[in-house]
Amino acid sequence: MEASRPLDTLNASRGKKVILELKNNKQIIGKLKAFDVHINTVLDEAEEHSDGQMVRKLGTLFIRGDTIILISPAE
Amino acid sequence: MEASRPLDTLNASRGKKVILELKNNKQIIGKLKAFDVHINTVLDEAEEHSDGQMVRKLGTLFIRGDTIILISPAE
Amino acid sequence: MEASRPLDTLNASRGKKVILELKNNKQIIGKLKAFDVHINTVLDEAEEHSDGQMVRKLGTLFIRGDTIILISPAE
Amino acid sequence: MEASRPLDTLNASRGKKVILELKNNKQIIGKLKAFDVHINTVLDEAEEHSDGQMVRKLGTLFIRGDTIILISPAE
Amino acid sequence: MEASRPLDTLNASRGKKVILELKNNKQIIGKLKAFDVHINTVLDEAEEHSDGQMVRKLGTLFIRGDTIILISPAE
Amino acid sequence: MEASRPLDTLNASRGKKVILELKNNKQIIGKLKAFDVHINTVLDEAEEHSDGQMVRKLGTLFIRGDTIILISPAE
Amino acid sequence: MEASRPLDTLNASRGKKVILELKNNKQIIGKLKAFDVHINTVLDEAEEHSDGQMVRKLGTLFIRGDTIILISPAE
Repeated sequence: MEASRPLDTLNASRGKKVILELKNNKQIIGKLKAFDVHINTVLDEAEEHSDGQMVRKLGTLFIRGDTIILISPAE
Repeated sequence: MEASRPLDTLNASRGKKVILELKNNKQIIGKLKAFDVHINTVLDEAEEHSDGQMVRKLGTLFIRGDTIILISPAE
Repeated sequence: MEASRPLDTLNASRGKKVILELKNNKQIIGKLKAFDVHINTVLDEAEEHSDGQMVRKLGTLFIRGDTIILISPAE
Repeated sequence: MEASRPLDTLNASRGKKVILELKNNKQIIGKLKAFDVHINTVLDEAEEHSDGQMVRKLGTLFIRGDTIILISPAE
Repeated sequence: MEASRPLDTLNASRGKKVILELKNNKQIIGKLKAFDVHINTVLDEAEEHSDGQMVRKLGTLFIRGDTIILISPAE
Repeated sequence: MEASRPLDTLNASRGKKVILELKNNKQIIGKLKAFDVHINTVLDEAEEHSDGQMVRKLGTLFIRGDTIILISPAE
Repeated sequence: MEASRPLDTLNASRGKKVILELKNNKQIIGKLKAFDVHINTVLDEAEEHSDGQMVRKLGTLFIRGDTIILISPAE
Protein backbone atom coordinates (compact mmCIF):
# COMPACT_ATOMS: atom_id res chain seq x y z
CA MET A 1 0.00 0.00 0.00
CA GLU A 2 1.38 3.35 -1.04
CA ALA A 3 1.45 6.12 1.53
CA SER A 4 -0.79 9.03 0.53
CA ARG A 5 0.70 12.51 0.17
CA PRO A 6 -0.73 15.82 1.42
CA LEU A 7 -1.19 17.22 -2.10
CA ASP A 8 -3.33 14.18 -3.02
CA THR A 9 -5.85 15.43 -0.49
CA LEU A 10 -5.87 18.88 -2.05
CA ASN A 11 -6.16 17.32 -5.48
CA ALA A 12 -9.29 15.46 -4.42
CA SER A 13 -10.86 18.84 -3.60
CA ARG A 14 -10.33 20.41 -7.05
CA GLY A 15 -13.59 21.93 -8.27
CA LYS A 16 -15.11 21.61 -4.78
CA LYS A 17 -15.73 24.14 -2.04
CA VAL A 18 -12.91 24.60 0.48
CA ILE A 19 -12.27 26.79 3.53
CA LEU A 20 -8.90 28.53 3.84
CA GLU A 21 -7.56 30.04 7.04
CA LEU A 22 -4.86 32.66 6.48
CA LYS A 23 -2.07 33.90 8.78
CA ASN A 24 -3.80 37.31 8.98
CA ASN A 25 -6.75 35.53 10.68
CA LYS A 26 -9.01 35.84 7.63
CA GLN A 27 -11.20 32.96 6.50
CA ILE A 28 -11.81 32.53 2.77
CA ILE A 29 -14.37 30.12 1.30
CA GLY A 30 -14.38 29.26 -2.42
CA LYS A 31 -14.17 26.59 -5.10
CA LEU A 32 -10.60 25.18 -5.36
CA LYS A 33 -9.48 25.78 -8.94
CA ALA A 34 -5.70 25.28 -8.76
CA PHE A 35 -2.71 24.94 -6.41
CA ASP A 36 1.02 24.24 -6.73
CA VAL A 37 3.83 22.83 -4.56
CA HIS A 38 4.21 26.17 -2.73
CA ILE A 39 0.47 25.87 -1.92
CA ASN A 40 -0.13 29.00 -4.05
CA THR A 41 -3.86 28.55 -4.50
CA VAL A 42 -6.61 29.83 -6.81
CA LEU A 43 -10.23 29.91 -5.67
CA ASP A 44 -13.32 30.68 -7.77
CA GLU A 45 -16.43 32.34 -6.31
CA ALA A 46 -14.38 33.22 -3.22
CA GLU A 47 -15.95 34.93 -0.20
CA GLU A 48 -14.40 36.27 3.00
CA HIS A 49 -16.20 34.98 6.09
CA SER A 50 -16.11 35.99 9.73
CA ASP A 51 -17.97 34.23 12.59
CA GLY A 52 -20.02 32.18 10.11
CA GLN A 53 -21.14 35.32 8.22
CA MET A 54 -20.02 36.37 4.72
CA VAL A 55 -18.10 39.68 4.93
CA ARG A 56 -17.47 40.31 1.21
CA LYS A 57 -17.49 38.60 -2.18
CA LEU A 58 -14.01 38.30 -3.75
CA GLY A 59 -14.66 36.36 -6.99
CA THR A 60 -11.59 34.63 -8.45
CA LEU A 61 -8.60 34.84 -6.12
CA PHE A 62 -4.89 34.00 -6.30
CA ILE A 63 -3.53 33.41 -2.77
CA ARG A 64 0.22 33.19 -2.09
CA GLY A 65 0.97 29.85 -0.39
CA ASP A 66 3.04 31.21 2.47
CA THR A 67 0.04 33.10 3.89
CA ILE A 68 -2.07 29.94 4.26
CA ILE A 69 -2.41 28.06 7.56
CA LEU A 70 -4.89 25.37 6.54
CA ILE A 71 -7.25 24.22 3.80
CA SER A 72 -10.33 22.18 4.62
CA PRO A 73 -12.93 20.65 2.28
CA ALA A 74 -16.31 22.37 2.88
CA GLU A 75 -18.55 19.81 1.23
CA MET B 1 -8.05 17.26 -18.98
CA GLU B 2 -4.98 18.98 -17.63
CA ALA B 3 -5.13 20.45 -14.15
CA SER B 4 -4.82 24.23 -14.20
CA ARG B 5 -2.00 25.94 -12.29
CA PRO B 6 -2.20 29.07 -10.11
CA LEU B 7 0.08 31.10 -12.40
CA ASP B 8 -2.28 30.40 -15.34
CA THR B 9 -4.89 32.44 -13.49
CA LEU B 10 -2.45 35.33 -13.03
CA ASN B 11 -1.47 35.02 -16.68
CA ALA B 12 -5.10 35.44 -17.75
CA SER B 13 -5.10 38.78 -15.91
CA ARG B 14 -2.12 40.30 -17.75
CA GLY B 15 -3.02 43.75 -19.03
CA LYS B 16 -6.14 43.79 -16.86
CA LYS B 17 -6.96 45.51 -13.60
CA VAL B 18 -6.19 43.55 -10.41
CA ILE B 19 -6.45 44.16 -6.68
CA LEU B 20 -3.46 43.23 -4.48
CA GLU B 21 -3.63 42.85 -0.72
CA LEU B 22 -0.25 43.17 1.00
CA LYS B 23 0.98 41.84 4.37
CA ASN B 24 1.21 45.44 5.66
CA ASN B 25 -2.61 45.68 5.20
CA LYS B 26 -2.34 47.96 2.16
CA GLN B 27 -4.55 47.46 -0.87
CA ILE B 28 -3.10 48.28 -4.29
CA ILE B 29 -5.16 48.42 -7.51
CA GLY B 30 -3.50 48.53 -10.93
CA LYS B 31 -3.07 46.95 -14.36
CA LEU B 32 -1.06 43.69 -14.11
CA LYS B 33 1.98 44.10 -16.35
CA ALA B 34 4.29 41.28 -15.22
CA PHE B 35 4.91 38.66 -12.55
CA ASP B 36 7.38 35.80 -11.96
CA VAL B 37 7.49 32.52 -10.00
CA HIS B 38 8.26 34.39 -6.74
CA ILE B 39 5.06 36.41 -7.43
CA ASN B 40 7.24 39.52 -7.80
CA THR B 41 4.68 41.68 -9.58
CA VAL B 42 4.62 44.85 -11.69
CA LEU B 43 1.51 46.99 -11.91
CA ASP B 44 0.87 49.97 -14.20
CA GLU B 45 -1.35 52.90 -13.21
CA ALA B 46 -1.25 51.64 -9.62
CA GLU B 47 -3.23 53.30 -6.83
CA GLU B 48 -3.33 52.66 -3.09
CA HIS B 49 -6.88 52.25 -1.81
CA SER B 50 -8.37 52.22 1.67
CA ASP B 51 -12.05 51.55 2.53
CA GLY B 52 -13.02 51.83 -1.15
CA GLN B 53 -11.34 55.26 -1.49
CA MET B 54 -8.16 56.02 -3.44
CA VAL B 55 -5.42 57.19 -1.02
CA ARG B 56 -2.63 58.00 -3.52
CA LYS B 57 -1.54 57.40 -7.10
CA LEU B 58 1.62 55.26 -7.42
CA GLY B 59 2.08 54.88 -11.18
CA THR B 60 4.24 51.92 -12.25
CA LEU B 61 5.13 49.69 -9.30
CA PHE B 62 7.43 46.73 -8.66
CA ILE B 63 6.14 44.74 -5.67
CA ARG B 64 8.29 42.02 -4.03
CA GLY B 65 6.36 38.74 -4.08
CA ASP B 66 6.84 37.84 -0.42
CA THR B 67 4.80 40.88 0.70
CA ILE B 68 1.70 39.81 -1.26
CA ILE B 69 -1.22 37.97 0.37
CA LEU B 70 -3.61 37.77 -2.57
CA ILE B 71 -4.26 38.99 -6.12
CA SER B 72 -7.78 39.29 -7.46
CA PRO B 73 -8.99 40.28 -10.94
CA ALA B 74 -10.89 43.60 -10.69
CA GLU B 75 -12.69 43.46 -14.00
CA MET C 1 22.67 0.27 14.08
CA GLU C 2 21.15 2.89 11.82
CA ALA C 3 20.24 6.22 13.36
CA SER C 4 16.50 6.86 13.23
CA ARG C 5 15.20 9.94 11.41
CA PRO C 6 12.47 12.37 12.56
CA LEU C 7 10.13 11.47 9.69
CA ASP C 8 10.28 7.79 10.74
CA THR C 9 8.54 8.81 13.94
CA LEU C 10 5.81 10.60 12.01
CA ASN C 11 5.51 7.62 9.70
CA ALA C 12 4.86 5.33 12.68
CA SER C 13 1.88 7.56 13.53
CA ARG C 14 0.13 7.26 10.15
CA GLY C 15 -3.51 6.29 10.67
CA LYS C 16 -3.25 7.10 14.38
CA LYS C 17 -4.42 10.04 16.45
CA VAL C 18 -1.93 12.91 16.82
CA ILE C 19 -1.91 16.33 18.50
CA LEU C 20 -0.58 19.30 16.51
CA GLU C 21 0.41 22.61 18.05
CA LEU C 22 0.44 25.51 15.58
CA LYS C 23 2.33 28.81 15.63
CA ASN C 24 -1.00 30.67 16.08
CA ASN C 25 -1.37 28.86 19.44
CA LYS C 26 -4.13 26.55 18.17
CA GLN C 27 -4.17 22.87 19.06
CA ILE C 28 -5.53 20.42 16.46
CA ILE C 29 -6.24 16.74 17.18
CA GLY C 30 -6.88 14.26 14.37
CA LYS C 31 -5.88 11.06 12.61
CA LEU C 32 -2.59 11.50 10.70
CA LYS C 33 -3.33 10.68 7.06
CA ALA C 34 -0.33 12.11 5.22
CA PHE C 35 2.73 14.37 5.52
CA ASP C 36 5.68 15.37 3.33
CA VAL C 37 9.24 16.69 3.81
CA HIS C 38 7.96 20.24 4.40
CA ILE C 39 5.80 18.73 7.19
CA ASN C 40 2.71 19.72 5.18
CA THR C 41 0.24 17.47 6.99
CA VAL C 42 -3.24 16.03 6.38
CA LEU C 43 -5.45 15.02 9.30
CA ASP C 44 -8.77 13.15 9.15
CA GLU C 45 -11.54 13.70 11.73
CA ALA C 46 -9.69 16.80 12.93
CA GLU C 47 -10.90 18.86 15.88
CA GLU C 48 -9.65 22.13 17.33
CA HIS C 49 -9.10 21.88 21.09
CA SER C 50 -8.50 24.48 23.79
CA ASP C 51 -7.76 23.75 27.48
CA GLY C 52 -8.67 20.08 27.02
CA GLN C 53 -12.07 20.96 25.48
CA MET C 54 -13.10 20.52 21.83
CA VAL C 55 -13.80 23.94 20.26
CA ARG C 56 -14.95 22.85 16.79
CA LYS C 57 -14.95 19.89 14.40
CA LEU C 58 -12.84 20.47 11.27
CA GLY C 59 -13.10 17.14 9.41
CA THR C 60 -10.31 16.52 6.86
CA LEU C 61 -7.62 19.17 7.05
CA PHE C 62 -4.54 20.16 5.02
CA ILE C 63 -2.09 22.09 7.23
CA ARG C 64 0.90 23.96 5.73
CA GLY C 65 4.08 22.65 7.37
CA ASP C 66 5.58 26.02 8.24
CA THR C 67 2.73 26.76 10.68
CA ILE C 68 3.42 23.65 12.78
CA ILE C 69 5.44 23.74 16.00
CA LEU C 70 5.11 20.12 17.10
CA ILE C 71 3.32 16.83 16.42
CA SER C 72 2.73 14.34 19.20
CA PRO C 73 1.14 10.86 19.07
CA ALA C 74 -2.12 10.92 21.07
CA GLU C 75 -2.56 7.19 21.49
CA MET D 1 4.68 38.87 -28.19
CA GLU D 2 6.85 37.89 -25.27
CA ALA D 3 5.48 38.41 -21.78
CA SER D 4 7.46 41.03 -19.87
CA ARG D 5 9.14 40.11 -16.58
CA PRO D 6 9.19 42.12 -13.32
CA LEU D 7 12.97 42.61 -13.43
CA ASP D 8 12.64 44.21 -16.90
CA THR D 9 10.72 47.01 -15.24
CA LEU D 10 13.48 47.50 -12.67
CA ASN D 11 16.05 47.38 -15.44
CA ALA D 12 14.31 50.21 -17.27
CA SER D 13 14.78 52.33 -14.13
CA ARG D 14 18.58 51.92 -13.90
CA GLY D 15 20.21 55.32 -13.51
CA LYS D 16 16.85 56.91 -12.74
CA LYS D 17 15.25 58.06 -9.53
CA VAL D 18 13.13 55.46 -7.68
CA ILE D 19 11.15 55.33 -4.43
CA LEU D 20 11.59 52.29 -2.17
CA GLU D 21 9.23 51.37 0.63
CA LEU D 22 10.78 49.10 3.27
CA LYS D 23 9.17 46.65 5.72
CA ASN D 24 10.24 48.92 8.62
CA ASN D 25 7.93 51.62 7.15
CA LYS D 26 10.84 53.75 5.90
CA GLN D 27 10.75 55.40 2.49
CA ILE D 28 14.03 55.76 0.60
CA ILE D 29 14.44 57.84 -2.58
CA GLY D 30 17.55 57.54 -4.76
CA LYS D 31 19.04 56.77 -8.17
CA LEU D 32 18.82 53.03 -8.96
CA LYS D 33 22.38 51.85 -9.58
CA ALA D 34 22.09 48.06 -9.33
CA PHE D 35 19.85 45.16 -8.26
CA ASP D 36 19.96 41.35 -8.40
CA VAL D 37 17.45 38.46 -8.41
CA HIS D 38 17.03 38.70 -4.62
CA ILE D 39 16.09 42.39 -5.20
CA ASN D 40 19.23 43.37 -3.26
CA THR D 41 19.41 46.96 -4.45
CA VAL D 42 21.98 49.77 -4.61
CA LEU D 43 20.89 53.40 -4.70
CA ASP D 44 23.07 56.48 -5.30
CA GLU D 45 22.29 59.87 -3.75
CA ALA D 46 19.79 58.15 -1.45
CA GLU D 47 17.62 60.08 0.99
CA GLU D 48 15.20 58.93 3.67
CA HIS D 49 11.82 60.63 3.36
CA SER D 50 8.82 60.88 5.66
CA ASP D 51 5.48 62.54 4.84
CA GLY D 52 6.96 64.12 1.70
CA GLN D 53 9.87 65.66 3.65
CA MET D 54 13.54 64.57 3.48
CA VAL D 55 14.65 63.22 6.90
CA ARG D 56 18.33 62.53 6.18
CA LYS D 57 20.82 62.10 3.35
CA LEU D 58 22.21 58.56 3.04
CA GLY D 59 24.45 58.73 -0.05
CA THR D 60 25.22 55.38 -1.67
CA LEU D 61 23.20 52.57 -0.12
CA PHE D 62 23.10 48.77 -0.32
CA ILE D 63 19.65 47.50 0.69
CA ARG D 64 19.01 43.80 1.37
CA GLY D 65 16.21 42.59 -0.91
CA ASP D 66 14.10 40.90 1.74
CA THR D 67 13.44 44.23 3.50
CA ILE D 68 11.86 45.81 0.41
CA ILE D 69 8.10 46.00 -0.13
CA LEU D 70 7.98 47.95 -3.37
CA ILE D 71 10.03 49.99 -5.84
CA SER D 72 8.46 52.73 -7.91
CA PRO D 73 9.98 54.95 -10.62
CA ALA D 74 10.02 58.57 -9.37
CA GLU D 75 10.52 60.29 -12.69
CA MET E 1 42.78 17.59 13.04
CA GLU E 2 39.37 17.81 11.45
CA ALA E 3 37.09 20.64 12.51
CA SER E 4 34.02 19.36 14.36
CA ARG E 5 30.56 20.17 13.00
CA PRO E 6 27.47 21.29 14.95
CA LEU E 7 25.49 18.15 14.10
CA ASP E 8 28.29 16.01 15.60
CA THR E 9 27.44 17.56 18.95
CA LEU E 10 23.77 16.70 18.53
CA ASN E 11 24.74 13.21 17.44
CA ALA E 12 26.70 12.69 20.65
CA SER E 13 23.47 13.39 22.57
CA ARG E 14 21.37 10.71 20.86
CA GLY E 15 19.60 8.60 23.48
CA LYS E 16 20.46 11.16 26.17
CA LYS E 17 18.42 13.82 27.91
CA VAL E 18 18.43 17.27 26.26
CA ILE E 19 16.81 20.64 26.91
CA LEU E 20 15.19 22.47 23.98
CA GLU E 21 14.26 26.15 24.01
CA LEU E 22 11.63 27.08 21.42
CA LYS E 23 10.85 30.42 19.75
CA ASN E 24 7.47 30.51 21.59
CA ASN E 25 9.47 30.66 24.87
CA LYS E 26 8.61 27.06 25.83
CA GLN E 27 11.23 24.76 27.32
CA ILE E 28 11.00 21.05 26.46
CA ILE E 29 13.10 18.35 28.17
CA GLY E 30 13.34 14.82 26.75
CA LYS E 31 15.51 12.02 25.42
CA LEU E 32 16.93 12.90 21.97
CA LYS E 33 15.77 10.17 19.60
CA ALA E 34 16.36 11.67 16.15
CA PHE E 35 17.14 14.88 14.25
CA ASP E 36 17.85 15.89 10.65
CA VAL E 37 19.65 18.72 8.79
CA HIS E 38 16.67 21.05 9.27
CA ILE E 39 17.02 20.35 13.03
CA ASN E 40 13.59 18.68 12.92
CA THR E 41 13.88 16.79 16.19
CA VAL E 42 12.19 13.84 17.93
CA LEU E 43 12.22 13.53 21.71
CA ASP E 44 11.06 10.57 23.81
CA GLU E 45 9.60 10.99 27.31
CA ALA E 46 9.29 14.72 26.62
CA GLU E 47 8.07 17.16 29.28
CA GLU E 48 7.31 20.86 29.10
CA HIS E 49 9.06 22.80 31.89
CA SER E 50 8.67 26.32 33.21
CA ASP E 51 10.84 27.94 35.92
CA GLY E 52 12.40 24.58 36.79
CA GLN E 53 8.97 22.94 37.26
CA MET E 54 7.37 20.35 34.96
CA VAL E 55 4.19 21.78 33.39
CA ARG E 56 2.96 18.74 31.45
CA LYS E 57 4.09 15.36 30.12
CA LEU E 58 4.20 15.19 26.30
CA GLY E 59 5.57 11.69 25.61
CA THR E 60 7.09 11.24 22.13
CA LEU E 61 7.33 14.53 20.26
CA PHE E 62 8.19 15.64 16.73
CA ILE E 63 9.38 19.26 16.76
CA ARG E 64 9.78 21.27 13.53
CA GLY E 65 13.36 22.56 13.34
CA ASP E 66 12.54 26.17 12.54
CA THR E 67 10.86 26.63 15.94
CA ILE E 68 14.00 25.66 17.88
CA ILE E 69 16.40 28.24 19.35
CA LEU E 70 18.83 25.95 21.14
CA ILE E 71 19.47 22.38 22.25
CA SER E 72 21.55 21.62 25.31
CA PRO E 73 22.63 18.26 26.79
CA ALA E 74 20.97 17.82 30.20
CA GLU E 75 23.18 15.04 31.53
CA MET F 1 28.37 48.51 -20.96
CA GLU F 2 27.88 45.86 -18.31
CA ALA F 3 25.24 46.46 -15.67
CA SER F 4 26.77 46.76 -12.19
CA ARG F 5 25.69 44.35 -9.46
CA PRO F 6 24.84 45.16 -5.82
CA LEU F 7 27.77 43.14 -4.44
CA ASP F 8 30.18 45.22 -6.56
CA THR F 9 29.19 48.19 -4.45
CA LEU F 10 29.91 46.29 -1.25
CA ASN F 11 33.19 45.10 -2.72
CA ALA F 12 34.26 48.69 -3.35
CA SER F 13 33.82 49.33 0.39
CA ARG F 14 36.16 46.55 1.58
CA GLY F 15 38.63 47.94 4.10
CA LYS F 16 36.58 51.12 4.43
CA LYS F 17 34.21 52.37 7.09
CA VAL F 18 30.52 51.41 6.62
CA ILE F 19 27.28 51.93 8.53
CA LEU F 20 24.95 48.93 9.00
CA GLU F 21 21.33 49.20 10.04
CA LEU F 22 19.92 45.99 11.54
CA LYS F 23 16.33 44.72 11.80
CA ASN F 24 16.49 45.14 15.61
CA ASN F 25 16.93 48.90 15.02
CA LYS F 26 20.61 48.88 16.01
CA GLN F 27 23.18 50.84 14.03
CA ILE F 28 26.70 49.39 13.74
CA ILE F 29 29.68 51.30 12.33
CA GLY F 30 32.93 49.54 11.42
CA LYS F 31 35.50 48.70 8.76
CA LEU F 32 34.09 46.23 6.20
CA LYS F 33 36.37 43.20 6.25
CA ALA F 34 34.33 40.52 4.49
CA PHE F 35 30.86 39.59 3.19
CA ASP F 36 29.29 36.72 1.22
CA VAL F 37 26.24 36.18 -1.01
CA HIS F 38 23.94 35.86 2.04
CA ILE F 39 25.28 39.31 3.09
CA ASN F 40 26.85 37.65 6.16
CA THR F 41 29.26 40.44 7.03
CA VAL F 42 32.41 40.91 9.12
CA LEU F 43 33.35 44.31 10.48
CA ASP F 44 36.59 45.31 12.22
CA GLU F 45 36.72 48.02 14.90
CA ALA F 46 32.92 47.89 15.11
CA GLU F 47 30.94 50.23 17.34
CA GLU F 48 27.24 50.38 18.15
CA HIS F 49 25.81 53.87 17.66
CA SER F 50 22.54 55.50 18.68
CA ASP F 51 21.42 59.03 17.77
CA GLY F 52 24.91 59.90 16.49
CA GLN F 53 26.55 58.77 19.77
CA MET F 54 28.72 55.66 20.26
CA VAL F 55 26.98 53.27 22.70
CA ARG F 56 29.66 50.54 22.96
CA LYS F 57 32.77 49.20 21.26
CA LEU F 58 32.31 45.74 19.71
CA GLY F 59 35.67 45.06 18.02
CA THR F 60 35.58 42.40 15.30
CA LEU F 61 32.04 41.30 14.52
CA PHE F 62 30.36 38.59 12.44
CA ILE F 63 26.82 39.65 11.52
CA ARG F 64 24.32 37.18 10.03
CA GLY F 65 23.08 38.55 6.70
CA ASP F 66 19.37 38.09 7.33
CA THR F 67 19.45 40.64 10.18
CA ILE F 68 20.77 43.43 7.96
CA ILE F 69 18.52 46.10 6.41
CA LEU F 70 21.12 48.27 4.73
CA ILE F 71 24.84 48.95 4.39
CA SER F 72 26.13 52.42 3.58
CA PRO F 73 29.71 53.64 2.99
CA ALA F 74 30.67 56.04 5.79
CA GLU F 75 33.65 57.66 4.12
CA MET G 1 45.38 39.15 -2.66
CA GLU G 2 42.36 36.98 -2.02
CA ALA G 3 39.31 38.58 -0.43
CA SER G 4 38.59 37.14 3.03
CA ARG G 5 35.24 35.49 3.70
CA PRO G 6 32.98 35.90 6.76
CA LEU G 7 33.34 32.25 7.81
CA ASP G 8 37.15 32.67 7.89
CA THR G 9 36.64 35.09 10.76
CA LEU G 10 34.50 32.58 12.64
CA ASN G 11 37.06 29.88 11.91
CA ALA G 12 39.80 31.98 13.51
CA SER G 13 37.70 32.00 16.71
CA ARG G 14 37.41 28.20 17.04
CA GLY G 15 38.36 27.14 20.57
CA LYS G 16 38.19 30.75 21.75
CA LYS G 17 35.62 32.66 23.75
CA VAL G 18 32.88 34.40 21.72
CA ILE G 19 29.80 36.49 22.48
CA LEU G 20 26.55 35.67 20.63
CA GLU G 21 23.56 37.97 20.45
CA LEU G 22 20.30 36.20 19.63
CA LYS G 23 17.07 37.50 18.05
CA ASN G 24 15.26 36.95 21.39
CA ASN G 25 17.61 39.57 22.90
CA LYS G 26 19.61 37.00 24.87
CA GLN G 27 23.39 37.21 25.08
CA ILE G 28 25.34 33.94 25.25
CA ILE G 29 29.09 33.73 26.01
CA GLY G 30 31.05 30.53 25.44
CA LYS G 31 33.95 28.78 23.71
CA LEU G 32 33.26 28.36 19.96
CA LYS G 33 33.44 24.63 19.23
CA ALA G 34 31.78 24.31 15.82
CA PHE G 35 29.66 26.11 13.21
CA ASP G 36 28.35 25.39 9.71
CA VAL G 37 27.21 27.38 6.65
CA HIS G 38 23.78 28.01 8.22
CA ILE G 39 25.68 29.51 11.21
CA ASN G 40 24.33 26.65 13.36
CA THR G 41 26.80 27.01 16.22
CA VAL G 42 28.06 24.91 19.13
CA LEU G 43 29.50 26.56 22.24
CA ASP G 44 31.25 24.88 25.18
CA GLU G 45 31.09 26.27 28.72
CA ALA G 46 28.26 28.56 27.60
CA GLU G 47 26.69 31.12 29.92
CA GLU G 48 23.73 33.43 29.47
CA HIS G 49 24.59 37.03 30.36
CA SER G 50 22.48 40.12 30.93
CA ASP G 51 23.82 43.64 31.60
CA GLY G 52 27.35 42.31 32.10
CA GLN G 53 26.16 39.77 34.71
CA MET G 54 25.99 35.98 34.27
CA VAL G 55 22.34 34.82 34.49
CA ARG G 56 22.82 31.04 34.21
CA LYS G 57 25.34 28.40 33.16
CA LEU G 58 24.30 26.44 30.07
CA GLY G 59 27.27 24.12 29.44
CA THR G 60 27.51 22.74 25.88
CA LEU G 61 24.98 24.37 23.59
CA PHE G 62 23.73 23.84 20.02
CA ILE G 63 22.25 27.08 18.67
CA ARG G 64 20.21 27.15 15.44
CA GLY G 65 21.81 29.63 13.04
CA ASP G 66 18.67 31.55 12.13
CA THR G 67 18.30 32.80 15.72
CA ILE G 68 21.72 34.48 15.74
CA ILE G 69 22.22 38.19 15.07
CA LEU G 70 25.96 38.48 15.63
CA ILE G 71 29.06 36.67 16.89
CA SER G 72 31.98 38.57 18.37
CA PRO G 73 35.35 37.29 19.62
CA ALA G 74 35.57 37.90 23.39
CA GLU G 75 39.31 37.52 23.78
